[in-house]
Amino acid sequence: MDGAVLTRRGLLVGIGAAGGAGAMYAAMGALGLAPDQQDKAFTPPRTGDFSLQGRAAAKVVILGAGVAGLTAAYELGKAGYDCTLLEARAKAGGRNLTLRGGDRLPELNGPTQEVKLGEGVYFNAGPARIAQWMVTLDYCRELGIPIETFVNRNSQAYIHNNGQTVRSGTARADMYGYVAELLAKAADRGALDRKLTAEDRERLLSFLRRFGDLGPKLDYEGTTRRGYIDPPDLDAGTPLGPPASLRQVLAMGTGWAITNDFGYDQATPMFQPAGGMDMIVTKLAEAVGEDRITTGAKVTKITNLPDGVEVTWDGGSLKADYCIATLPPHLLAKIPHNLGAQITAALRLPTPVATGKIGLEYDRRWWELEDRIYGGITETDLDITHLWYPSHDYHARRGLLIGYYNVGPAAELYGALTPEDRRRRALTQGKKIHGEKYRTGVLSDVSIAWERQEHIQGGWVGWPGFDSSFTLLQRPSGRVYFAGDWLTRLVAWQAGSMESARSVVTELHQRVLRSP
Amino acid sequence: MDGAVLTRRGLLVGIGAAGGAGAMYAAMGALGLAPDQQDKAFTPPRTGDFSLQGRAAAKVVILGAGVAGLTAAYELGKAGYDCTLLEARAKAGGRNLTLRGGDRLPELNGPTQEVKLGEGVYFNAGPARIAQWMVTLDYCRELGIPIETFVNRNSQAYIHNNGQTVRSGTARADMYGYVAELLAKAADRGALDRKLTAEDRERLLSFLRRFGDLGPKLDYEGTTRRGYIDPPDLDAGTPLGPPASLRQVLAMGTGWAITNDFGYDQATPMFQPAGGMDMIVTKLAEAVGEDRITTGAKVTKITNLPDGVEVTWDGGSLKADYCIATLPPHLLAKIPHNLGAQITAALRLPTPVATGKIGLEYDRRWWELEDRIYGGITETDLDITHLWYPSHDYHARRGLLIGYYNVGPAAELYGALTPEDRRRRALTQGKKIHGEKYRTGVLSDVSIAWERQEHIQGGWVGWPGFDSSFTLLQRPSGRVYFAGDWLTRLVAWQAGSMESARSVVTELHQRVLRSP
Repeated sequence: MDGAVLTRRGLLVGIGAAGGAGAMYAAMGALGLAPDQQDKAFTPPRTGDFSLQGRAAAKVVILGAGVAGLTAAYELGKAGYDCTLLEARAKAGGRNLTLRGGDRLPELNGPTQEVKLGEGVYFNAGPARIAQWMVTLDYCRELGIPIETFVNRNSQAYIHNNGQTVRSGTARADMYGYVAELLAKAADRGALDRKLTAEDRERLLSFLRRFGDLGPKLDYEGTTRRGYIDPPDLDAGTPLGPPASLRQVLAMGTGWAITNDFGYDQATPMFQPAGGMDMIVTKLAEAVGEDRITTGAKVTKITNLPDGVEVTWDGGSLKADYCIATLPPHLLAKIPHNLGAQITAALRLPTPVATGKIGLEYDRRWWELEDRIYGGITETDLDITHLWYPSHDYHARRGLLIGYYNVGPAAELYGALTPEDRRRRALTQGKKIHGEKYRTGVLSDVSIAWERQEHIQGGWVGWPGFDSSFTLLQRPSGRVYFAGDWLTRLVAWQAGSMESARSVVTELHQRVLRSP
Repeated sequence: MDGAVLTRRGLLVGIGAAGGAGAMYAAMGALGLAPDQQDKAFTPPRTGDFSLQGRAAAKVVILGAGVAGLTAAYELGKAGYDCTLLEARAKAGGRNLTLRGGDRLPELNGPTQEVKLGEGVYFNAGPARIAQWMVTLDYCRELGIPIETFVNRNSQAYIHNNGQTVRSGTARADMYGYVAELLAKAADRGALDRKLTAEDRERLLSFLRRFGDLGPKLDYEGTTRRGYIDPPDLDAGTPLGPPASLRQVLAMGTGWAITNDFGYDQATPMFQPAGGMDMIVTKLAEAVGEDRITTGAKVTKITNLPDGVEVTWDGGSLKADYCIATLPPHLLAKIPHNLGAQITAALRLPTPVATGKIGLEYDRRWWELEDRIYGGITETDLDITHLWYPSHDYHARRGLLIGYYNVGPAAELYGALTPEDRRRRALTQGKKIHGEKYRTGVLSDVSIAWERQEHIQGGWVGWPGFDSSFTLLQRPSGRVYFAGDWLTRLVAWQAGSMESARSVVTELHQRVLRSP
């Protein structure tokens, strides 16, 4: 969900973790299962595959009706597989959760929130943005879900750091200006001549003048890129004053915030389904068939049999030819099974990460009217971390801000509070950026602490390393397959759940086609 | 409409052009007309203003029903002014022109194009994007026009320069990487110590490591920010190879393209009305009253009278208390009038700029399906200059690309061609970026050469300087006022037309309220 995630994962995993794809494909190849360029072109199973091969569709029980489980059922359903989904929660979707007025949000060891958002207002409590290269967009296209642009970079949004608040466009202009000045002057006085030919130097200077909007003497003295007190109209407008000194700009420490969309998974632009992220859940569940999904079914036992799998839940049990387990690994590890101690140990390795969000519904969109911010993210060094402005329903009467989106200790701090105290704290923090108006006109609020959501208990997981345990679980254990974002390098992204589901579907289907 | 415009204007005007606002406000102040902080808060005239002052609404004839004329009529209408708009073209809107299937586009000394775009597909032939600080968005809000995000920055879009094509995200990663490496190493070896304290240096290095994604030894060796051959899924994916050398990257010359959204008027994100830019025209005209707009009325004479204004057109004449002339200055200069030689000379100063666009409708959105580009702009050094991907109707079956958007000589070159030859040339150029698929599946096309549009004859105008002629025309000549983007520092933006109209409305209303 966030640049911070990749960084965190990077720290956990280390550079150049071995194993991964290579090991998996080698193993699959040994079983005669390795599909050609599986990553590049997924071919969904088709009913025709069976008539060609003289096989029949098998019965598959899928544990968890989140995005991984639903995607697996959807793809298997294309070939007529008989899928049953067992979902412990009250409704399908898992972390893909969009809350609207009338919804109820219970919490482990906490009160149940009654969601009172106004008509048409929604809160994407889980995933909320999609990069344009991700398979998630393909599912939106295939399922007929309209998408719209998600604004993840906005020059008008703020950066709040070390007690100071500045527009991100201003911060960027200043950092780029001074970086350009320092390098241009070094190049100009010949300090880089060991690295640059005269031609290189001229090209570099030409770039730096533009990059930093430098003056004729290669000085950065501020520029209209910083913004205006009054923008141009009949006259040239009143630009913001000159920048602070290099030292002061460096001390403001905005660098982490202005590089926020530099990663491949966060690059501008991003996208969201119109009407709420759970459009994906709704359309997948429709395509799968609601009757195939049993909610409120908490799995209590998984048994590999010689000719199938038996799954027991608190309301019954069933036998199937195959099982796909998509529950979070730390919860799956606690369910009795006969898959062996190595599987249990592997499932216990990844650790859940706390994450939380609050939706604040206001009676007017003051961020558009007064701050002139249409979508985007204000980055802060406060415990609220991020503050998101909505990228949809611009100019509507009401609107919902994400008042915090935090991870780890900050999320745990908010999660431990009552919903009222979370709101109070979020408003106190946001006021530091937006002033007193931030605390007035709040119509309703709803907050989620993913580590306190029953049957999920975490925003996502962190692997200590993408090692042999990771690749072990990418392979079936007998007739039990595992799927989820946690088995991919796209942890915390729906695309991970979908890619994992596709991979398992391909393997399972190949196996059925080749089974005696 | 474009960063190139500001640059061009910058060249024409020079830095620190004198006069402008100061002179204008001084002049207005001398007349007792200067409103308080007009820029900051526009107060529309209200009917109540008259009862308070014992005045009646006046009759106003407005020349031109483009955005300036419509805005003036709309605002004056709020107080009950009796406005008549004379529009020479067949319909209102001026350069705010959205073309759809069934429309006809005649051209001076050229054939008429029959627009054959499919249902729901449109081509914003004139303005096509709005910055979030611009008054244009306020009119969208006030008029109930839904807006959506316009993607003007896209890391997946291409840069085509010196015969090479590269994703803009890749180009940016490489330029930033090398800039960071050069400066970090200079700082690290003490070459900047006269400018930086040890603390500054550490902060700078910390920023540069992040900014350039540098390795532990401050080397730029490429990074996943460059993009992937295969993005991550179950495995870590296959990143693009290492970058070209510093010398090669500098020689590629992508710097102008990767700084494209750095200006205040182009900063990400931008916006567009859903359904076509002419939603603004439609809603303004509705609010004004279609019966107040006479189309096909070419003005032939403007006469200031002691007690009013007389305007003659090819179908009649009328008398009004005031006139607002919003025609392009170079055309207005040719209409006989009794406003004096100084006015004519001032109107002749700004020179029209050629600009053109082509809309290419394809039978499938291959840029989304194959290039994974959702909206945004590919920058080129070819005569097509820019190539725009649509920021709306993502995943629809059909879609319309802007195959060129060019200005000046390149626009004149295309404008001089027949529509067929424009299309052929645009497809040949676009193929250099997108390959053979660019020339297949084109369902229809339509191109505009604004310098060849009757009664407009230019994309916008360039002032040799914002000097006394500019400010002269910002004031009324007798009972004739002038309005248009050409009288603002927002030339080529609808916001300029709107700001200018607001200013004239305020002045005219004050005058009526104070008239004996």
